Amino acid sequence: MEGPVFIENISDSFSVSSGITQVYHTRKSKFQTIHVVETIPWGKCLILDGHLQSSERDEFVYHENLVHPVLLSHPNPKTVFIGGGGEGSTLREILRHKTVEKVVMVDIDAECVDVSKKFLVHHHAGAYEDPRVHVIIDDAKAWLENNDEKFDIIVQDLCDPVDDTPSQLLYTQKYYETCKSRLNPGGSLVTQGGPAGVTSHSMVFTAIHCTLASVFPRVQSWKTAIPSYVDEWGWSIASTNADFDVANMSAAQIDKLIEERIKNGAEALKWYDGEIHSGMYKLPKNIRKTLEAEKRVITEDNLLFIP
Amino acid sequence: MEGPVFIENISDSFSVSSGITQVYHTRKSKFQTIHVVETIPWGKCLILDGHLQSSERDEFVYHENLVHPVLLSHPNPKTVFIGGGGEGSTLREILRHKTVEKVVMVDIDAECVDVSKKFLVHHHAGAYEDPRVHVIIDDAKAWLENNDEKFDIIVQDLCDPVDDTPSQLLYTQKYYETCKSRLNPGGSLVTQGGPAGVTSHSMVFTAIHCTLASVFPRVQSWKTAIPSYVDEWGWSIASTNADFDVANMSAAQIDKLIEERIKNGAEALKWYDGEIHSGMYKLPKNIRKTLEAEKRVITEDNLLFIP
Amino acid sequence: MEGPVFIENISDSFSVSSGITQVYHTRKSKFQTIHVVETIPWGKCLILDGHLQSSERDEFVYHENLVHPVLLSHPNPKTVFIGGGGEGSTLREILRHKTVEKVVMVDIDAECVDVSKKFLVHHHAGAYEDPRVHVIIDDAKAWLENNDEKFDIIVQDLCDPVDDTPSQLLYTQKYYETCKSRLNPGGSLVTQGGPAGVTSHSMVFTAIHCTLASVFPRVQSWKTAIPSYVDEWGWSIASTNADFDVANMSAAQIDKLIEERIKNGAEALKWYDGEIHSGMYKLPKNIRKTLEAEKRVITEDNLLFIP
Amino acid sequence: MEGPVFIENISDSFSVSSGITQVYHTRKSKFQTIHVVETIPWGKCLILDGHLQSSERDEFVYHENLVHPVLLSHPNPKTVFIGGGGEGSTLREILRHKTVEKVVMVDIDAECVDVSKKFLVHHHAGAYEDPRVHVIIDDAKAWLENNDEKFDIIVQDLCDPVDDTPSQLLYTQKYYETCKSRLNPGGSLVTQGGPAGVTSHSMVFTAIHCTLASVFPRVQSWKTAIPSYVDEWGWSIASTNADFDVANMSAAQIDKLIEERIKNGAEALKWYDGEIHSGMYKLPKNIRKTLEAEKRVITEDNLLFIP
Repeated sequence: MEGPVFIENISDSFSVSSGITQVYHTRKSKFQTIHVVETIPWGKCLILDGHLQSSERDEFVYHENLVHPVLLSHPNPKTVFIGGGGEGSTLREILRHKTVEKVVMVDIDAECVDVSKKFLVHHHAGAYEDPRVHVIIDDAKAWLENNDEKFDIIVQDLCDPVDDTPSQLLYTQKYYETCKSRLNPGGSLVTQGGPAGVTSHSMVFTAIHCTLASVFPRVQSWKTAIPSYVDEWGWSIASTNADFDVANMSAAQIDKLIEERIKNGAEALKWYDGEIHSGMYKLPKNIRKTLEAEKRVITEDNLLFIP
Repeated sequence: MEGPVFIENISDSFSVSSGITQVYHTRKSKFQTIHVVETIPWGKCLILDGHLQSSERDEFVYHENLVHPVLLSHPNPKTVFIGGGGEGSTLREILRHKTVEKVVMVDIDAECVDVSKKFLVHHHAGAYEDPRVHVIIDDAKAWLENNDEKFDIIVQDLCDPVDDTPSQLLYTQKYYETCKSRLNPGGSLVTQGGPAGVTSHSMVFTAIHCTLASVFPRVQSWKTAIPSYVDEWGWSIASTNADFDVANMSAAQIDKLIEERIKNGAEALKWYDGEIHSGMYKLPKNIRKTLEAEKRVITEDNLLFIP
Repeated sequence: MEGPVFIENISDSFSVSSGITQVYHTRKSKFQTIHVVETIPWGKCLILDGHLQSSERDEFVYHENLVHPVLLSHPNPKTVFIGGGGEGSTLREILRHKTVEKVVMVDIDAECVDVSKKFLVHHHAGAYEDPRVHVIIDDAKAWLENNDEKFDIIVQDLCDPVDDTPSQLLYTQKYYETCKSRLNPGGSLVTQGGPAGVTSHSMVFTAIHCTLASVFPRVQSWKTAIPSYVDEWGWSIASTNADFDVANMSAAQIDKLIEERIKNGAEALKWYDGEIHSGMYKLPKNIRKTLEAEKRVITEDNLLFIP
Repeated sequence: MEGPVFIENISDSFSVSSGITQVYHTRKSKFQTIHVVETIPWGKCLILDGHLQSSERDEFVYHENLVHPVLLSHPNPKTVFIGGGGEGSTLREILRHKTVEKVVMVDIDAECVDVSKKFLVHHHAGAYEDPRVHVIIDDAKAWLENNDEKFDIIVQDLCDPVDDTPSQLLYTQKYYETCKSRLNPGGSLVTQGGPAGVTSHSMVFTAIHCTLASVFPRVQSWKTAIPSYVDEWGWSIASTNADFDVANMSAAQIDKLIEERIKNGAEALKWYDGEIHSGMYKLPKNIRKTLEAEKRVITEDNLLFIP
């Protein structure tokens, strides 16, 4: 390669380089370094502290996974809390749900929200203008602790747990207990779970699952490849309902709910539908083994990070 | 990153760099540049013409996908032909099947086979010593055209179709017709199908499926993420049997066959089993749409390449 | 390194990467790919066909070497022709000379001139506004062949000779003959001579010297390190005067001429003065040996390129 | 670029990558990470803590600069102390001097010396076998403090001053005072002085000069481009003799001394001779200005590092 590129260090010994044509924004905010760049392979990208968060070309995979299974598996989700989510794509997907009446999004970094509003129009698609949306600039943990408002759904749309970053305390047992106390009966929490590939799932994905399982009666996890993340990514849904079973909802059920609850029905979604839903909770043998053997519970005294 | 690394250009505008600690082999053979390097993230790797073919750390995912579904979905596979396969891992997996009596492997590059025997002991695990194995150094296409031996299974374990490489003619309609004529009744062909991620599947994966479908009565395709390939990878099984249906074999059926037919049963496999089998043929909506709309049939006059 | 960088491939097996914060311009003109980027180590840079031409931080070294020795060693330079020079820094340095009455600059790429005027204000420093300057968009070779105007000084401010680029014919014996015929009596030509370090001088530097010596009675060459070029760079002055001897002008002579002829005198220059002049024509032994043994004359039938 | 490369981070925002074909050695010794690699552009290289120290292709430039001016400007150098020098090339050049009767080399890292003996045969060229050579594994500073042996010449062949490395205390006023006390009357010390290019000379080069000048009556400095260092490099000779003047020795004097004192005379040297000597002490204006204005004296309480 030659010319302008963006280098992301995935680990100490693995990096990826994408050709770029523009640097829209490059600045250290109060909390993180924010880059918005136009890449050749992935289109416009938001990059926080050097790690690609969202690419124009494949962010739909991440956001459809994060939002639709948790909302469609709830009987009637009216109120949603988003921890993080500054770029606005999570908002965009949530607002497709006709049942949703109110979304409270708490992101710590005003500059990240502003930069996203300005440059990531493809990503938020105007979601910030929707009257159901309430954006609060605060630490999600502090806000939940200081407010007793309850929600049907909590969506954790965060950076990965990395040492000395604001998100590190948002993957702990204590935080999940706070979340549980802020869910209405039958409510669910979904979190992104970090790298979940055959060689990366034991870094944090299985420990996040295990930590959720120490707080909630029911946790189900899955993974999906995100090309611009150069790995598979994990998600976990934790429910307050012990009989909750998103993984065994049938393709027909999901497709019916998409038509009923999502504005413009199946037309609105690019990646997710009943067919893929019916296969995506099946994990390969080696990941199932790690998940079954996992004992790590992440606590504030015993944090866990991506190395 | 700093120090010694291996850079792979995935495309003109996307590359990956892996830290290395050894260069075991670096030479241009008659057909391709062959590197064997010790990488930090992926262990020992075989790299042909700059593209990582097989990493010690995750090759099991590729080879279990390539070999076990096609063999277990055949009623009694005794004879197997491998096109390519020089590194020996495909041999290793095939030889686990107790039904298999003879494997003919035809690889064009003697140097690649020799280098693999010498350095990739983890990969072939001694498979070359098995008396069932017959290694022939030749072009797979030429050999099949010049020999009328028939097989129960044909395994296409090739480099991706890239312009001016020996494998470019091994993804064509004409080649698949030759293969079909060398299969015993009820026989199947499996091929690796190149990148099959949400943003890469239309390069060659869906066209390979479509080309197979122009020759065989039944084709079924799936994909799996391979971390060291930094993408999901595709496979297609083409059967001479119109009622063939690997995709709908149940988890229980697969697990029973693994116990019956594979030496040491489930113990022998790391990634594949009935559970993952029962989900892996479900493709996301956007890939299914491309596959359904695909009309490209690859012919010798109209070759298709990874750009 | 991580984040946005600019990668320049110096050769097939050597590249340099500079952190960047902005991409001001990135476009393929009719003749070349033009990048203007803000780099962290070198400030704002003009990059043509992937090769850094001029960096804000050290372009003064290149341009003071290119312009002042040739002008100060001429008794009274009034008219100057520039072949190439689009970025405007060569103009800037020439215009410091009070004797100069007219500068004709012929650059082939209007887009490069426009981009430079717009983004490289530091470089041209308003030189394009000077009434002595005449900018012509044309091939320097064609223009000189089609016009019989004569000059005191010809300055070759070109990209390196690279295959299939417009500058490849501007380093040939025939072109130098044309130049010689367009010089007034006693006139000199100066050209940049490409990489001239201890390991790179035999690529083109010594051959350019030898080619000039096949046309002009007197040629003197020197080299200077340019940090952003990651090598030493060469220059050659060819004079129509057999007694010409820039290399043996004394420090005192040079300093006196700087005060007399250059606007603001020594104040105006950052790198060049009598002291450095008095050492810079001394070449190390191995380069002198190559220069003495050099027999290559570059002709249109026998072009020479940087590999 | 693609395939195996070695990446050197020159600074936080500038790196260079060289194609490699072999990794001969890669290990963290007690003091530093040691790599010996075969590079395509520079041949076999020794790399310490990620920084190229010596390349087969151009190490002669560094070592001829380090050794010959200081030895030829001494009336009769019989005894030499080397601080550092593990790779053996400095030994090789010193041993060419017929006057030299004893060389004491003190390098802190036995592993580095052993690796050099084993892999860098081109570099040391058998110097370690010469009976005049005494190799001691110790910290040069500690050894000089604990021994009162005196020398005619001290050669500082060290890694650059970088924080938390063993060489950081070998560029201080205190260390130079120790060195001065271990020089015979009329003796000189030479040190490599780090990057000395037009944009890099103020990092440490001018401060090292200034520190030496706070201890010795006479200091003279120069610079030379080293291609594999991607910059010009500095050297300083500090003499106990106030009338010392290496910079003004004539070309003829140098050439005569080379014939008299160096085994095989001018034949033995590739880069250095009277001609280049007579120009190399002339510095460009901007570096002279920095040098004249420099006030920084490096002390143990006020260390100075390359950032």
